[in-house]
Amino acid sequence: MIKTVVTGLLCAAAALTAGILIGHYGIDKSSDSAPAWVKDVSKDVDENLLEELLSQVDNGRIQENLRELSKTPHMATTVGDEQTVQLMLNRWRDPETGLDRVWREEYMVYLSFPDPDKPNKVTVVNPSNAVLHTVREKEKAYTPDQEDPAVVQPYAAYSPAGQVQGKLVYANYGTVHDYQLLNDTINLKDTIAITKYGGTGRADKAINAARYGIRGVLVYTDPLDMNDGFMSDNNETYPHSWYMPPSGTERGAFSSIYGDPLTPYLAAKENTYRIPEDDITGIPPIPIQPIGYEDAYTLICELGGGPAPMAWQGAFNCTYNVGGPGFRPSSAFNNSDVKLDISNYGKVKNSANVMGVIRGSVEPDRYVIYGNHRDSWVHGAIDPGSGTSVMLELTRVLGKALKQGKWRPRRSIIFASWGAEEFGLIGSSEYTEQYLTKLSERTVAYINVDVAVQVVLTDLSASVGQVKAPGVDSMSVYDKWIRYANRTSPVYGLIPSLGFLTGAGSDYAPFVHYLGITSLDISYTFDRTKTRTRIYPAYHTAYDTFDYSSKFIDPGFYIHQAVGKTAGSVLVRLADSLVLPLNCSDYAETLEGYLHMALQVYEDYLLAQNISMEPIKRAVANFRSAASNLDRVIRSSDLANETPLKVRKINDQLMLLDRAFLNPVGSPSKFRHVIWAPLEVTMGTLPGLRDTSVVQAMSPGTPPTMAQLHLLVSVMSQAIDGAAQMLLDVI
Amino acid sequence: MIKTVVTGLLCAAAALTAGILIGHYGIDKSSDSAPAWVKDVSKDVDENLLEELLSQVDNGRIQENLRELSKTPHMATTVGDEQTVQLMLNRWRDPETGLDRVWREEYMVYLSFPDPDKPNKVTVVNPSNAVLHTVREKEKAYTPDQEDPAVVQPYAAYSPAGQVQGKLVYANYGTVHDYQLLNDTINLKDTIAITKYGGTGRADKAINAARYGIRGVLVYTDPLDMNDGFMSDNNETYPHSWYMPPSGTERGAFSSIYGDPLTPYLAAKENTYRIPEDDITGIPPIPIQPIGYEDAYTLICELGGGPAPMAWQGAFNCTYNVGGPGFRPSSAFNNSDVKLDISNYGKVKNSANVMGVIRGSVEPDRYVIYGNHRDSWVHGAIDPGSGTSVMLELTRVLGKALKQGKWRPRRSIIFASWGAEEFGLIGSSEYTEQYLTKLSERTVAYINVDVAVQVVLTDLSASVGQVKAPGVDSMSVYDKWIRYANRTSPVYGLIPSLGFLTGAGSDYAPFVHYLGITSLDISYTFDRTKTRTRIYPAYHTAYDTFDYSSKFIDPGFYIHQAVGKTAGSVLVRLADSLVLPLNCSDYAETLEGYLHMALQVYEDYLLAQNISMEPIKRAVANFRSAASNLDRVIRSSDLANETPLKVRKINDQLMLLDRAFLNPVGSPSKFRHVIWAPLEVTMGTLPGLRDTSVVQAMSPGTPPTMAQLHLLVSVMSQAIDGAAQMLLDVI
Repeated sequence: MIKTVVTGLLCAAAALTAGILIGHYGIDKSSDSAPAWVKDVSKDVDENLLEELLSQVDNGRIQENLRELSKTPHMATTVGDEQTVQLMLNRWRDPETGLDRVWREEYMVYLSFPDPDKPNKVTVVNPSNAVLHTVREKEKAYTPDQEDPAVVQPYAAYSPAGQVQGKLVYANYGTVHDYQLLNDTINLKDTIAITKYGGTGRADKAINAARYGIRGVLVYTDPLDMNDGFMSDNNETYPHSWYMPPSGTERGAFSSIYGDPLTPYLAAKENTYRIPEDDITGIPPIPIQPIGYEDAYTLICELGGGPAPMAWQGAFNCTYNVGGPGFRPSSAFNNSDVKLDISNYGKVKNSANVMGVIRGSVEPDRYVIYGNHRDSWVHGAIDPGSGTSVMLELTRVLGKALKQGKWRPRRSIIFASWGAEEFGLIGSSEYTEQYLTKLSERTVAYINVDVAVQVVLTDLSASVGQVKAPGVDSMSVYDKWIRYANRTSPVYGLIPSLGFLTGAGSDYAPFVHYLGITSLDISYTFDRTKTRTRIYPAYHTAYDTFDYSSKFIDPGFYIHQAVGKTAGSVLVRLADSLVLPLNCSDYAETLEGYLHMALQVYEDYLLAQNISMEPIKRAVANFRSAASNLDRVIRSSDLANETPLKVRKINDQLMLLDRAFLNPVGSPSKFRHVIWAPLEVTMGTLPGLRDTSVVQAMSPGTPPTMAQLHLLVSVMSQAIDGAAQMLLDVI
Repeated sequence: MIKTVVTGLLCAAAALTAGILIGHYGIDKSSDSAPAWVKDVSKDVDENLLEELLSQVDNGRIQENLRELSKTPHMATTVGDEQTVQLMLNRWRDPETGLDRVWREEYMVYLSFPDPDKPNKVTVVNPSNAVLHTVREKEKAYTPDQEDPAVVQPYAAYSPAGQVQGKLVYANYGTVHDYQLLNDTINLKDTIAITKYGGTGRADKAINAARYGIRGVLVYTDPLDMNDGFMSDNNETYPHSWYMPPSGTERGAFSSIYGDPLTPYLAAKENTYRIPEDDITGIPPIPIQPIGYEDAYTLICELGGGPAPMAWQGAFNCTYNVGGPGFRPSSAFNNSDVKLDISNYGKVKNSANVMGVIRGSVEPDRYVIYGNHRDSWVHGAIDPGSGTSVMLELTRVLGKALKQGKWRPRRSIIFASWGAEEFGLIGSSEYTEQYLTKLSERTVAYINVDVAVQVVLTDLSASVGQVKAPGVDSMSVYDKWIRYANRTSPVYGLIPSLGFLTGAGSDYAPFVHYLGITSLDISYTFDRTKTRTRIYPAYHTAYDTFDYSSKFIDPGFYIHQAVGKTAGSVLVRLADSLVLPLNCSDYAETLEGYLHMALQVYEDYLLAQNISMEPIKRAVANFRSAASNLDRVIRSSDLANETPLKVRKINDQLMLLDRAFLNPVGSPSKFRHVIWAPLEVTMGTLPGLRDTSVVQAMSPGTPPTMAQLHLLVSVMSQAIDGAAQMLLDVI
């Protein structure tokens, strides 16, 4: 700019030009010259630099990251886990591609393991106690790494130990409704139930069963739900395809809470108060054990009793009977019991998060957090290796630019490699508990890279528009997204559809549900028109290996690369944008949709009891109007040329919006977000508006009382109105 | 500044000077010239302007404000209350001296009143049901305004209605300990207890009594506790002095919770869910009624039984016996019962807050809130008239400067005239519930002007140093403060001593205890070496009138003026300072002091049970170190010349510090601040560190379990450490 001016004055005396230069540069101490920081504070995303950074995201490096990360099993707190801790520390501390500051942070958390010296056993025993069948203890190995002695036996973490036996019944998914239906015709007392994965939370299958006096529960993955019906390892399943082999068994945390079970709301440090183990809530009260569908087949196809309802039938080539209870008279198992001998034990162990930071240049006190868990059930090539291998490549690219002095984000970026996620999001939960206020007050957004494409409150279409997807066509990720998962918005027309973070499926849960922090969970998922599997079939089995991923999920690692570029773009935009790329009008649209559904389900019913839904209607209308107003302010302001405190004000309105949705009423809960809280895990509290609108309150089970519904309407109204207040003109 | 430079260059050619001027002023559109807002964002308090504003605070106007405010009784939601609403609205909307925006905000809240058609009665009745004595129903009038029919009968708000009778016992202050002691020698079942005000919360006197089967409770003010022993209205008490006349009776809310009792955690709007009246907690389960000491004398001096302990004796010229139970055989009341006939009723009524705003120029999204309640029990000349008359004068002075364009604060100021405070801080509580997130995220501090001098986390000595106190001497308020209430600080030497906001005595409670907002409660109180009265003697009686205040409290209204200047100075400094005048090292000193006491009381006891206090010691040390570090950063930075986002970062650290002390564990409670929560009102939750350190946990009553103590140490440690995190370098 000075150049233009000087050029324009070239015809004048040299002394005049010199004067201009002095006036402009010489009077540094004058309050009228622009301080150096004036330019910095108004800087926006540098699109060219971003493009350059993303172009460095390398599929080959991601592949080698994954090979290294998944070479041995690394269940939380094992030797393998510690190796990955060291790997993360070394990478993030690399002098040429590392971060500003890196550290490990430890928590002493209560985990649950099978006893290697006394493996869990499931058998069929006849009345003389002779064992007629023994369920396979470990999955069949197809490659050498699956023979690693560190492969943990399939088990249900947090299932109690115990020996139980009884006649077998088939209970579908083990939902409240399933057991109710079964109970209409069978006396369930003292039986063992076999259930399928899906339909409800893992722990619920045992918690629901215990109400009927059932003594133990088995759970397996039906090939209909996961394998598109394929069952034979001769040619159909892994290593011939991505489908789960017959002995494949999903492990998992059988817990409906998240965070260390002994220290709710407190970070699990050495001297922290721990509740008695008997006071842990949300875990199975009776033994439960997962088995492969090979063994499930052997058990279910021998069952007596009448046929189970059509909807309960699975992929096996036999009729799924409900059980006499027990096996049919013509079976070799006639009169036999199923026996569970479970030796799981609980232990407080040291689990580490690895944390790394890039300090922000202009707003260091604003954090964008990017995380993924590090622990796996076995080798975890996909869960969590895919996310971690991408994260390591992103930190390499960003770290390099940082160390070369090419880039420093406007806001601080915190990278997190969480520990013990598989046991109930423990590393991330303890972190949010320990730094509750700091994180609540300063976190712009949390980005998680794990399984489903689920995004909350984002206006990041620009982030993915430029990223090319893998494959023969040259469509961008955005184009593919809009083709395979879309919806029609009244405002934008056809747009990519987003899922919502209503559950607690990964480490975003403590951020969105406990702290009310805007969160994203990003992944590139399969084409749902081509398979009905609910997740990739090797999930939580011994087959989730580098071999499986590189052969059947992403040969060449181009999808990993596309996810890396997409997540990297989102991350840098959140960190560098002058105005945060969060759109509150989209939130208004979502609220209006849910309200519309809730009104259809509830309004007449409530009005008949003199409970008005006007307050919640008014609140949503207030929210819409406040959101439109804020959008107008953003559009009509020349924010790059106004006081940085005005941009900060607007960014704080956007950043803190979700905090207003936290429920202040009722017993404490880690599901505090009144829009997204899942119905099934909010016993004693309130379900979020979304679930309220899609789940009939008058459904079987435990319908809420009128008082609870009225309270729900009041809490929702106040929260939505409080959120609207955050968007309104600040005073 | 430009002038200096130009002067320095006078010897050069004229062309050069012109060049400088062009370079400096002519290149407006250049990105290198300072935008207009650069000066604004670094502006600090204008001491000259502040001095000028404070000089306009006028004692005569305060006097006339008070005359107007206290001319009729204005109990919450009555006609008189509405008149004061209109007065506030009119003043704050004055075109020449008003605020930017003014509005009333209504809540429908559950209040409790005596029935005017069926006044509460307390009588002595003999076995034949003949009435031997009737307690005075209304206080004696000495001036015409005390005869106003709107003077409400003395009563205990939230006492249940009911007719109860029984033999009388004397129970001192009605504490847990008092009833325990009495119970050692007397069967308290079916008795009526007479108790004195003080020693415990109002409601507790009845709640504690009910545990022993006591049927009803009387409460009176003993002249020893309030009147320095004076009792005769011939020459000793009002209208001859400030002492309470014999029929004077303290009214009050008999409730140990605050906020609308039917809508905990929810703003009490028209359709808000309300809990059943029977579910209200913290109110008397049995009838209770206040009476004057004149009648208390008649009852107590006739009591039988043995003499009460020396410490229980009051100012009456008779021995306080504990009761037979009942009266002594030689009394005319022998064998008689005391009978309470209480007709209080609960009703949901419309209560208004009046709100007024001055919008901030630079940081409109930062709020300094200044409030006082508007409702009184009767005329309320002191409670709340003194505070309101001062607030009206302050808003006049500030409003005038605003309308004249002379001043606009850096941050926004919110003035609040709360409704229904006397019934349990209801207006302020509903406000904090309704705007929970907005207020939590944006409020710098809450200033309350009511009764005691109690300040949290403030470094405002400059505010009061310049204000002259009334009286013959010319000492400043600061000098008087340091003379009459001082302590020795290890850092500063002799300084004024501050009380702490541990209770819920006025509208600061929802701000500090529920939201964790730094709060101050300011008043100029009497010389405690000259009287042992616990508060001014007309408190909550029909004698708290303009006549009383202008004759015995502050003739000439110079003290009111001094309070106005002091509060105004604090207010303007909080609103205008570049760096917030809040000192975190002082907080560290306080924590160290409490920790020291807590260690003395608990450490050995806990260590014997293997519970370590190391975590809390470490947390306090971390806090101290983080506070010192932040102090260093503030001292060593040239904040007026750095990016305004750096000042904002530091101010946010100071502003949000107290939020980190909110307890995330345990049942919901409106006493969430783990340092200041009062022990006696935190049943089921945790007492604050201060109470933990000064109250023996191993005291009679209900000592905490080892698990509770361990939990307490963990919660404290995490909260204090979380607060330290807020002060540390931001990432």
